[in-house]
Amino acid sequence: MSEQVFSSTQLLEFTKAVFLKCGMPEKDATLASNVLLEADLRGIDSHGVARLSGYVRLFKAGRANPTPKFKWNREKKSAGTIDADGGLGLVSAPYAMQLAIEKAKETGSCFIGISNSNHFGIAAYHSMLPLQHDMIGWSMTNASPLVAPTGSSQRMLGTNPICVAFPAKDHEPFVLDMATAAAANGKLEIASRNNKSIPEGWVQTKAGQKSTNPDELKNGGALLPLGTIEEAGHKGYGLAAMVDLLCGVLPGANYGPWVPPFVAFLPVQPNLPGKGIGHFVGALSVDAFTDLEDYYKNMKQWIDAFKNATPIGDNEVLVHGEAEHREKTIRWKNGIPLNEKVVADLLSLSGEMNVKLQ
Amino acid sequence: MSEQVFSSTQLLEFTKAVFLKCGMPEKDATLASNVLLEADLRGIDSHGVARLSGYVRLFKAGRANPTPKFKWNREKKSAGTIDADGGLGLVSAPYAMQLAIEKAKETGSCFIGISNSNHFGIAAYHSMLPLQHDMIGWSMTNASPLVAPTGSSQRMLGTNPICVAFPAKDHEPFVLDMATAAAANGKLEIASRNNKSIPEGWVQTKAGQKSTNPDELKNGGALLPLGTIEEAGHKGYGLAAMVDLLCGVLPGANYGPWVPPFVAFLPVQPNLPGKGIGHFVGALSVDAFTDLEDYYKNMKQWIDAFKNATPIGDNEVLVHGEAEHREKTIRWKNGIPLNEKVVADLLSLSGEMNVKLQ
Repeated sequence: MSEQVFSSTQLLEFTKAVFLKCGMPEKDATLASNVLLEADLRGIDSHGVARLSGYVRLFKAGRANPTPKFKWNREKKSAGTIDADGGLGLVSAPYAMQLAIEKAKETGSCFIGISNSNHFGIAAYHSMLPLQHDMIGWSMTNASPLVAPTGSSQRMLGTNPICVAFPAKDHEPFVLDMATAAAANGKLEIASRNNKSIPEGWVQTKAGQKSTNPDELKNGGALLPLGTIEEAGHKGYGLAAMVDLLCGVLPGANYGPWVPPFVAFLPVQPNLPGKGIGHFVGALSVDAFTDLEDYYKNMKQWIDAFKNATPIGDNEVLVHGEAEHREKTIRWKNGIPLNEKVVADLLSLSGEMNVKLQ
Repeated sequence: MSEQVFSSTQLLEFTKAVFLKCGMPEKDATLASNVLLEADLRGIDSHGVARLSGYVRLFKAGRANPTPKFKWNREKKSAGTIDADGGLGLVSAPYAMQLAIEKAKETGSCFIGISNSNHFGIAAYHSMLPLQHDMIGWSMTNASPLVAPTGSSQRMLGTNPICVAFPAKDHEPFVLDMATAAAANGKLEIASRNNKSIPEGWVQTKAGQKSTNPDELKNGGALLPLGTIEEAGHKGYGLAAMVDLLCGVLPGANYGPWVPPFVAFLPVQPNLPGKGIGHFVGALSVDAFTDLEDYYKNMKQWIDAFKNATPIGDNEVLVHGEAEHREKTIRWKNGIPLNEKVVADLLSLSGEMNVKLQ
């Protein structure tokens, strides 16, 4: 599949212009564009501008609010819930994280649930906001059901990511950002495009049988929780469930099989138990636990030790976030390669919204 | 292997008497015994009285302190670090969790790191303490290195469990308690005893090759992170690393390859970067996020939905903590079966400590 390379500035300006045309205020359009671009820069192509048309469809279908008024449903010194008023998670998650950071400055930690929201993009963007304040950042979101719990053939959980970022002065930060399914949907799409089979343990058929067919979801199959093929699928299922309980049940968003779909062409179910989709973000202030100097010294020693762990053959032992940081450095300089399908989608959006992609 | 059945009272009294002989105060000996018994009752045999002689060896080697004075290294409204003064995690973790609960009553959330500690037993005991206060409980611990990071043949991480418990009035609580390795050591020991091979993805050889030999650790091999065989081992590695950073680096305990061994016959390394092993506990007060009534209603709907998810064949779809609760109900009534090796170990301890097992 052929690719076309764009500069970050090109994509950022285009994305922002599209969001403005959707009715988003300047500040929110800028923020949402930055979140999408961060994904493209870090090489998480599935969560970048490739998603832009999806957000536009949500606005056009009246299923996302371009001018939300965020408000506290409940507020305590180190916890609370924000109602995102149907806005994009691209905006509500950083908003809530800023509140968590301010509160954690006072108390040492703060966790905030977000209800009535929509897709929040790349989790790492949100978890990395506390880093500049010498804080550890957490973010999670639930998502529409694609994953079957252990022993079931029914899609009950999203790919529900967990992201935690730790500041590390002398190195790039440690940033774990992982779907709790064995593989997120994007990896299946790549295999399908290349006519390749996928590893056992990523999907099962509609009847719950093992499969290595990347198109199994289209046949009614389901993604599998992390660890299934190793007889440890209850762990991935448990992590996905934890994310769903924190993001859905706790703040009063939808959960499990009721989480609304990202794509606007799929209907929302009737009799939803909550509002929109949900997120959960938090910040832990390092100096509430230890001296900053000690922490950064030990963080350096930790990362150095892992970088120097005995490799198998010519493998490189990576620390989480390292590969994405390298990719960002390259793409910042050389531009962002987009595959022809994404380019076609952006060009179509360009025509539809009367916004130049140049 | 033959088994012998003991009542909880028998085991509790024996364990408490042994801990008292080790010099622990009455209150601490009772608490530590309750933590071990909870593991045996829940069917987590690897973390119950089978470990008792291990704790005794730590005391006899002077590597654990029977009369620790816990103190704050740092204290904020919703965070802090406790120095466990070389005591057992069986005692320091519930102590810190009680402090977290009290603080979370005021602020909505609290997370506490624990340094200078030892093995804390079954994580679920600690995570379940906040449940009676309508709070969500978290606990994690690091442990001596057995797990190789992705791409490495070196043991760098413990089986570093993550445990999160959610209260659920109309059902038993949701309790996820999982090692971040594909399988913890106990499962290898069971397979070895039964002369069975283990699934691919649990261990690798000393050189980093795939293996299904349950005795591979004795040959210098390593446990593998959750997800390795599905080409997602970076996820299990990342979760184990997150636990190590929160439990080790953050509170100033040891971390990574420097975490001291549980077994007293293995030496502690020189030039340790921190103190003892580390834990991380926390509590989130549900009513800081939403109405209790709404939460419990949605929790019921969530659990009911998962219990009723379409099963594959005659599988039962379980919710986390359910199997352990069933086992506890049975064992509470019928007693706790211990295998002959554990019974022999307890009898030997009985002679050594002059404490009757009756």
